[in-house]
Amino acid sequence: MKALGLCTDLYELTMAQSYLQHGRTSRAVFSLFVRKLPANRNFLVSCGLETLLEYLERFRFGDEELRYLRSLGKFRDSFLDYLREYRFSSNVYAIPEGRIIFQNEPIVQIEGPLPEVQIVETLVINTIHFQTVVASKAVRSYLVSGGRSLVDFGFRRAHGLEAGIYAARASYIAGFDGTSNLEAGRRWGIPVFGTMAHSYIMIFDSEDEAFRSFAQTYPEGSVFLLDTYDTIEAAHLTAKLVKEGIRVVGVRLDSGDIPLLATRVREILDSQGLRDVKIIVSGGVDEYSIEEWISRGVPADAFGVGTKFITSADAPYLDMAYKLVEYEGKPKVKKSPGKATFPNLRQVRRFYSGTEMDHDETFRWGEAPEEGEELVVKVLEGGRLKTKIPSLSEIRELLMEELKRLPPRMSGLRKENYEVIIK
Amino acid sequence: MKALGLCTDLYELTMAQSYLQHGRTSRAVFSLFVRKLPANRNFLVSCGLETLLEYLERFRFGDEELRYLRSLGKFRDSFLDYLREYRFSSNVYAIPEGRIIFQNEPIVQIEGPLPEVQIVETLVINTIHFQTVVASKAVRSYLVSGGRSLVDFGFRRAHGLEAGIYAARASYIAGFDGTSNLEAGRRWGIPVFGTMAHSYIMIFDSEDEAFRSFAQTYPEGSVFLLDTYDTIEAAHLTAKLVKEGIRVVGVRLDSGDIPLLATRVREILDSQGLRDVKIIVSGGVDEYSIEEWISRGVPADAFGVGTKFITSADAPYLDMAYKLVEYEGKPKVKKSPGKATFPNLRQVRRFYSGTEMDHDETFRWGEAPEEGEELVVKVLEGGRLKTKIPSLSEIRELLMEELKRLPPRMSGLRKENYEVIIK
Repeated sequence: MKALGLCTDLYELTMAQSYLQHGRTSRAVFSLFVRKLPANRNFLVSCGLETLLEYLERFRFGDEELRYLRSLGKFRDSFLDYLREYRFSSNVYAIPEGRIIFQNEPIVQIEGPLPEVQIVETLVINTIHFQTVVASKAVRSYLVSGGRSLVDFGFRRAHGLEAGIYAARASYIAGFDGTSNLEAGRRWGIPVFGTMAHSYIMIFDSEDEAFRSFAQTYPEGSVFLLDTYDTIEAAHLTAKLVKEGIRVVGVRLDSGDIPLLATRVREILDSQGLRDVKIIVSGGVDEYSIEEWISRGVPADAFGVGTKFITSADAPYLDMAYKLVEYEGKPKVKKSPGKATFPNLRQVRRFYSGTEMDHDETFRWGEAPEEGEELVVKVLEGGRLKTKIPSLSEIRELLMEELKRLPPRMSGLRKENYEVIIK
Repeated sequence: MKALGLCTDLYELTMAQSYLQHGRTSRAVFSLFVRKLPANRNFLVSCGLETLLEYLERFRFGDEELRYLRSLGKFRDSFLDYLREYRFSSNVYAIPEGRIIFQNEPIVQIEGPLPEVQIVETLVINTIHFQTVVASKAVRSYLVSGGRSLVDFGFRRAHGLEAGIYAARASYIAGFDGTSNLEAGRRWGIPVFGTMAHSYIMIFDSEDEAFRSFAQTYPEGSVFLLDTYDTIEAAHLTAKLVKEGIRVVGVRLDSGDIPLLATRVREILDSQGLRDVKIIVSGGVDEYSIEEWISRGVPADAFGVGTKFITSADAPYLDMAYKLVEYEGKPKVKKSPGKATFPNLRQVRRFYSGTEMDHDETFRWGEAPEEGEELVVKVLEGGRLKTKIPSLSEIRELLMEELKRLPPRMSGLRKENYEVIIK
């Protein structure tokens, strides 16, 4: 799937063919925004722009794609020729990745000839939607974890391989320390972590033999999984092996009453002077369990965050739309009940009270006052990059700076609202 | 990402290296199953096997992958050589795609040398999990839709492009009539459908001009979107245009009180003798809204099912595991609380009462009695295909036959349980 041109919905192409037939090829602006945040999100994290820019570059119609489209019997030769020549060469305005964003803010705006910018609708929504969903989920674990380490363990239950890979990237932006996902590690240099599975323990005749065997392969330091048979016994065994000179950097708990078991395990390790052996917790971890376990005093040093994060289980989608807001310089507004949009290419300005975010205002592009901080940046002009693409570390640092400016009331799991004024 | 070898978690490889070092390379069996169905699923639909077989074939470690793994400083040259030669050549047993399945049934079982079958864990879970999640969601809409057409409109809010493409396939298996997703249309010949977006209407000076323009491009028959400005006025306009000779095959409603509006639109169309103009409903459609709207008498001919289906919003993941069940011919059982597994390579037999499914029993492979219907099939032997891969239509037909045998109590949205006896 090198060409990507068929990563779209049929109606994008049927509309485009009709636009061309009727000479509707002037400058249009489409805006991608979220109408309303989910009940359990106080803010979102802009994510996915780098991927979108790569995809727009690769959005082409090759022979195979055109042959298929011709077979549908809906498209004229002249339109198929148009598609053959299609190269995305429009302007893209975006709120950079790692920024905190809210309802009604234009995350991505695309300005160009109507058929060209209509055709990429599905691709634009799909790419930004998913990565924003998962970054916005991941950052909640970061905010409640009180500085403990977080590692993405979700690859296996992501909605496909691609989802797992981009979720690892999103979670690293959102403050995770690493991932178990090797492909994400290779692509972006994200630190990779892993321990052992229950299967490893079960292969050997005893837990003792399993732990020793693993440590033999990794003499520089192992993490032992404790809950295959009996967590407490495995903690005693770990202490015994460390006394014998085996290097253990941590233990992992994956089931049972986590705060209770972790406390017992910590006591056993500490009583043997093993204060530097870390406790890693996994199994059903999300921001809710992290918050609850911390309130119960769980002595965890790190959390392996998996399924519920990678599927964003409590809010698996956003009410995100890509709407026409301007055509031939004229504002466009749709009037369907409950689905109003805001016309024109727009800028967002953020206003602070001291160092804290106070509210945002969105303005028609060019009409924004000189006050406040501009969020929207022109990233492509005529399809060409206008700004430097930030590295993953830079995006992560930007979000960390953003989080410092987030009002404390907004950083918990209780629902809070933030004002976005539309001017 | 041609090689796929890095589509795994780090610990699969660290364990494999240790297995090799300690000579743990004998025959192992891993079993993929769902421990417990979600609260809002009465059954699951087996889905994803064809993709898994393709992925296993492509699961390799090329130069780029090996260079990355070497850079991690955890792997010896001998292990990297093992990975360079890695070709999946184990046995795969599976419950075919399109089968109805339940808790504790081995959807996929992989039998082969321990390191080889351990390494693909992440890939196996990821592939079968997602497609089973989404097929099991889609079939619920099919069951409550009372024969009305269903079309997948979810691509834009799927968790990535790949998720959207495979979800289209899964939904077609589950009884949908087609998809808006062109790439899925090309790959599997799934019928593609599309109407027009609000943007199309807004580009023209009036709805009248927009409808006429679209019909000019598609004189063989258009579907008009009615809710851009005023649904009722748009219905009157549609009737007027049909009277003028414009061919309209349907209208789409995407917002508002759907049963109420659809009823009014139907009346307007019928009063003009346009009984053959179909009403297509979209916007927040899932099995719950379909059931509710039908109970309110909605005169819809088709539903465009999108976001909530493609993210499986009410059950975005399954409690699915890939567990070691046998090694060197010995059964393996893990004893963590609440996470027991069932040992050995297994067969499932389904027992009927008349033509209705009554219960299932799972047996150690080779010990199953001659009664009941066998669900598990050996699909790969030594990495080579042992059975014909069914076409998408065949899989869909299999599921349609399965649904006829599902007890009526199981086919609604109310929670019901089905007995799976473990022998």
